Amino acid sequence: MRTNLTLLTDFYEITMAHGYFDQGIADKIAYFDLYFRRIPDGGGFAIMAGLEQVVNYLENLSFTKEDIDFLRSKECFSEEFLNYLANFRFECDVWAVEEGTPVFPNEPLIIVKGPILQAQFIETMLLLTINHQSLIATKSNRIVRAADGRTVLEFGSRRAQGYDGAYYGARAAYIGGCVGTACTIAERDLGIPAVGTMAHSWVQVFPDEYSAFCAYAAVYPDDCLLLVDTYNVLKSGVPNAIRVHNDVLVPMGKRLKGIRIDSGDITYLSKKARKMLDEAGLADCKIIASNSLDEYIIREALMHGAQIDSFGVGERLITSRSEPVFGGVYKLVALESGNRIVPKIKLSENVSKITNPGFKNLYRLFAKDESPIADVITLHDEVIDDTKPYTIFHPEYTWKKTTLTDFKAEPLLKRIFDKGKCVYKLPSLKEIQERCRRQVDSLWDEIKRFENPHEYYVDLSLPLWNIKQKLLGSYVDENN
Amino acid sequence: MRTNLTLLTDFYEITMAHGYFDQGIADKIAYFDLYFRRIPDGGGFAIMAGLEQVVNYLENLSFTKEDIDFLRSKECFSEEFLNYLANFRFECDVWAVEEGTPVFPNEPLIIVKGPILQAQFIETMLLLTINHQSLIATKSNRIVRAADGRTVLEFGSRRAQGYDGAYYGARAAYIGGCVGTACTIAERDLGIPAVGTMAHSWVQVFPDEYSAFCAYAAVYPDDCLLLVDTYNVLKSGVPNAIRVHNDVLVPMGKRLKGIRIDSGDITYLSKKARKMLDEAGLADCKIIASNSLDEYIIREALMHGAQIDSFGVGERLITSRSEPVFGGVYKLVALESGNRIVPKIKLSENVSKITNPGFKNLYRLFAKDESPIADVITLHDEVIDDTKPYTIFHPEYTWKKTTLTDFKAEPLLKRIFDKGKCVYKLPSLKEIQERCRRQVDSLWDEIKRFENPHEYYVDLSLPLWNIKQKLLGSYVDENN
Repeated sequence: MRTNLTLLTDFYEITMAHGYFDQGIADKIAYFDLYFRRIPDGGGFAIMAGLEQVVNYLENLSFTKEDIDFLRSKECFSEEFLNYLANFRFECDVWAVEEGTPVFPNEPLIIVKGPILQAQFIETMLLLTINHQSLIATKSNRIVRAADGRTVLEFGSRRAQGYDGAYYGARAAYIGGCVGTACTIAERDLGIPAVGTMAHSWVQVFPDEYSAFCAYAAVYPDDCLLLVDTYNVLKSGVPNAIRVHNDVLVPMGKRLKGIRIDSGDITYLSKKARKMLDEAGLADCKIIASNSLDEYIIREALMHGAQIDSFGVGERLITSRSEPVFGGVYKLVALESGNRIVPKIKLSENVSKITNPGFKNLYRLFAKDESPIADVITLHDEVIDDTKPYTIFHPEYTWKKTTLTDFKAEPLLKRIFDKGKCVYKLPSLKEIQERCRRQVDSLWDEIKRFENPHEYYVDLSLPLWNIKQKLLGSYVDENN
Repeated sequence: MRTNLTLLTDFYEITMAHGYFDQGIADKIAYFDLYFRRIPDGGGFAIMAGLEQVVNYLENLSFTKEDIDFLRSKECFSEEFLNYLANFRFECDVWAVEEGTPVFPNEPLIIVKGPILQAQFIETMLLLTINHQSLIATKSNRIVRAADGRTVLEFGSRRAQGYDGAYYGARAAYIGGCVGTACTIAERDLGIPAVGTMAHSWVQVFPDEYSAFCAYAAVYPDDCLLLVDTYNVLKSGVPNAIRVHNDVLVPMGKRLKGIRIDSGDITYLSKKARKMLDEAGLADCKIIASNSLDEYIIREALMHGAQIDSFGVGERLITSRSEPVFGGVYKLVALESGNRIVPKIKLSENVSKITNPGFKNLYRLFAKDESPIADVITLHDEVIDDTKPYTIFHPEYTWKKTTLTDFKAEPLLKRIFDKGKCVYKLPSLKEIQERCRRQVDSLWDEIKRFENPHEYYVDLSLPLWNIKQKLLGSYVDENN
C-alpha cells in the first residue's frame, strides 16, 4: 500500500546509528525487547497485532538515493556512513509472539538480536506498528466481547487518526473480532468484508422518507437495509420501512434485510422497533445500531434488553478513544562481548520501569483443559520440561509461589527472521482472527472482566530472576 | 507520499453513488457543509488543518482498473455505473477556510457544491483528513501556548496511530506551533526540522555514562546534547555532562549545547540542573524535558519555576490523548431544483445536532485593533457592509444582540475548486504556521484560557436565521 517508510524514524535512531558507525561499534551484537507495561482500559490482557507490517517493513528496509541525499543535506553524517546506508542489508534475528495472541505486561512481544546499528534503527517503526495495531485489536476485542455473540462492524474511518489509522485500524479491529468494516479499501487490499448502505443525506435528497426507501429498495432489493432515524424512528422510519417491504420488496419476492438506528436511545428504540417489525411479520429483519458506541454502552444496552443484532462502532473503536495510546517500549537488554552475552538493565526510580535483562524466551503454561495458567519469561536457552513439576513465583513478592504438575508448556516466541531473512510463514488475516477468538475463549473469565480483572501471572524463571537481582545488587553497590 | 486512496471511503458512499446513478439523479446539484460541533479539551477555539491533503486528494481522485474490478466483484453495481467511475472527473466547487485559522463550532470549514454523486462520495476522505489534522493542530497549539514562548518539539511517532498518524501528525503539530519533530521523513517531505540525539540505549552500550557522553561529543561536537537520566540525573548525568564539556568540547573550541531530562520530577531536576550548569559556566547550555508532557504538566512546571528551555512532547500530542477525536461532520444543506437552491435541514431530538440549512458564507468581524469580535454565518450571496452599523445576535437567545460600528468584515471561505479545477494557491507550511501564530495572537486572552474560556460568538445572519426558523416551523407543522 505504501512505499519507502525507511525514514519514518525518530531522527535519533540515525544520529545514534552514525555514532555507532563512527565509534567502530556498529556491529556489536545487541539484544532488544519490545514489550508494554500497562494494559489499556484496565483490561486483563491485550491482543498482539501488527507483526505482518513489521515483517513487510523489515523485508523492504533500504535507503533510496533520495533518502541518502536528504541525510547528506543535514551535514552531520560522514560519507562512509551514508555509503553504509546506501548498501544497507538487514541482518538481524527476530523472534515474535504471533498476531492475535493474548499478551500481558512485561513479556517480550518481539526480540531483536543483531548489529546494534540495525537493531536500534528499527525501533520507531516496530513500536509505531505494534503499538497502533495492538491498541485497536485490544479495544476491538473488548467491544466484541461486550456484544456477546452479536456481530460488530468497524465504522470509524472518518474519525481515524490519518489514513493508516483507518486502514490498519480496520485490520486490527478485524483481528480483535469485528466481522466487517465500512472502509472499502480494507476489503480490496485485506479482504475484510466492507459493508454500508446509506447516510441521512440519501433520505434527505428524496421528497420524503418513503420515496427514499422505495428508491433504495429498487436499487438493492437483495440487500435492503434502511436507515430509519432521519426524521423519527418509531413514527416515521420503522413504519416506512415496513411499508416499503410490503409495497416494493414482497412483490419482487424479496424481504427487508434490516434497519439501522443511528441516534437516540438505542435500547428503547430497538425494543419498540423489534416489536413493530415482529408484528408486521418481519421477525427476520435485523436491527443494527450505530451511535457513539463502545464496550460499556453495548453491555449496558444488552443488559437492559436492547434488541440489537449488530453494532456499528466508530470513533471509540478506531481511535480507542478511552485510552488512545498503547505504551509499548523497546529496550536494550543485552550486549555481546566476545562470545559472552552480557545482560543489561535500565534502572528507574519507578520500580515498574526497571527492565528485565538478558536474552530471553517466553513460555505459556496451560492446564489440562487448555486454559492458560501463567506465562514465564526465561533465559533464551532454558527449556521448561512439562513432564516434571515446575515452580513459578511472583517476581516481586517471591514468597507467592505455586508448583505446577500436569501442565503443558508452549514457547510463545516464533522465529521470524534468521540473519535478516524472513523464515516465518505469515498466516492469513482470517487465521489470525481465528487464533485470537480461540485463545481469548480459553482464558479464564476472571481475566476477561472489564472491572478489576484478575491479574494473570507473568513470572520470571529462577535463572532470569537471579540475573536481575545480581544486576540490581551491583547497581546499588556502585551508587552507595 | 501515497497513491490511490480513492477507495479509502465508507462503502455506503459507493452504494449511495450507485443509487443516485441508478435513480437518474446523480447530477442533481447538492451542497454539503463540513463543520464540527465541539472544541476538544473544552478549549475556546480549534485550528483548521489538512486542507492541502484534501486538495491533493481531490486533484487525484480517480478509479483505477483495480478499483473497478474490485467493485465489480461485489456484484451489486451496474456496468453503466462502473463505467461512469472509470471515467470519473471531479466537477465540484469547493470553498474552505485556510489552514492555520482559528475556527469555531458550527461554522462551515469546507463547503462543497456539485453533482450529488460526487459531493457525497468525497465525504469520508474530507472528514478523515480535516478531523485528524485539526485535532493535532489544535492540541499542538494548546501545548505551545502552555510553553509560553519556549520551544516545543513533537516527539510522538512511536505512539502515533499508524504511519500517517506520525507523518501528518508532525505536519499538524508544526501548524499549531511546534518548531521541530523527531520524525525524520517529515523533514525530508515536508521541510519540518527533524531533531534528535540519543536514547538511553546509547548510554548503556558504553562501559559508563562518561564514556558514552565522550563518544557522543566526539561525533557531534557542534551539536552536543546529552541525555542525562539513564542512571541518576543530578549525581551522575549532569556532572558527567559538565566533565565532557570541559574534557572534550572545550579543547575542540566547542560548547555543550544542551542536556535532556526524560524522567523524574522535571521541575525539581531542571532547577537543580540549571544551577549546576550555571555554576560550571554553562549558562548557555539548554535544558530539554521530555517525559509524558502535555499542556497541563508544562504549565504547572513553569508555574513552579521549572528551568526548561524546550519541551519534547510525545504521545499526548501525537494522539491528542486527552481527547483523541475531532468530531467533524459533513451534512447535506441544500439541493438545487431547477434554478432554485432549496435549503435542507437535518433535525434531531438533540437541538445542538440540528444543521444550519442553505448555501452559505462565513465572515469574521474584526475590531479596530484587529482582534476578532465574532463570526457570522450568512447566506452565500450576502455581503456584510462594514461601512455601516451591523447587528449580530445569538442564534438561540436572540434577545442577546449587539450593533457593531467601526469594524472590519472579512470572508473566511476561499474558493479552492472551480468546477473541479483547483484555483487555490497552496501556501507553504511555514506560511500556514505563521498565519496560525498571528491569528491566535490576535484572539482575546479570554478565549485562550484552558479553563472555561469565553465562548466566541458565531452568529447567524438574519436572512439565514429566518430560513432556519421557517424550515424548523414547517417541520413542526408536518409532525403535529
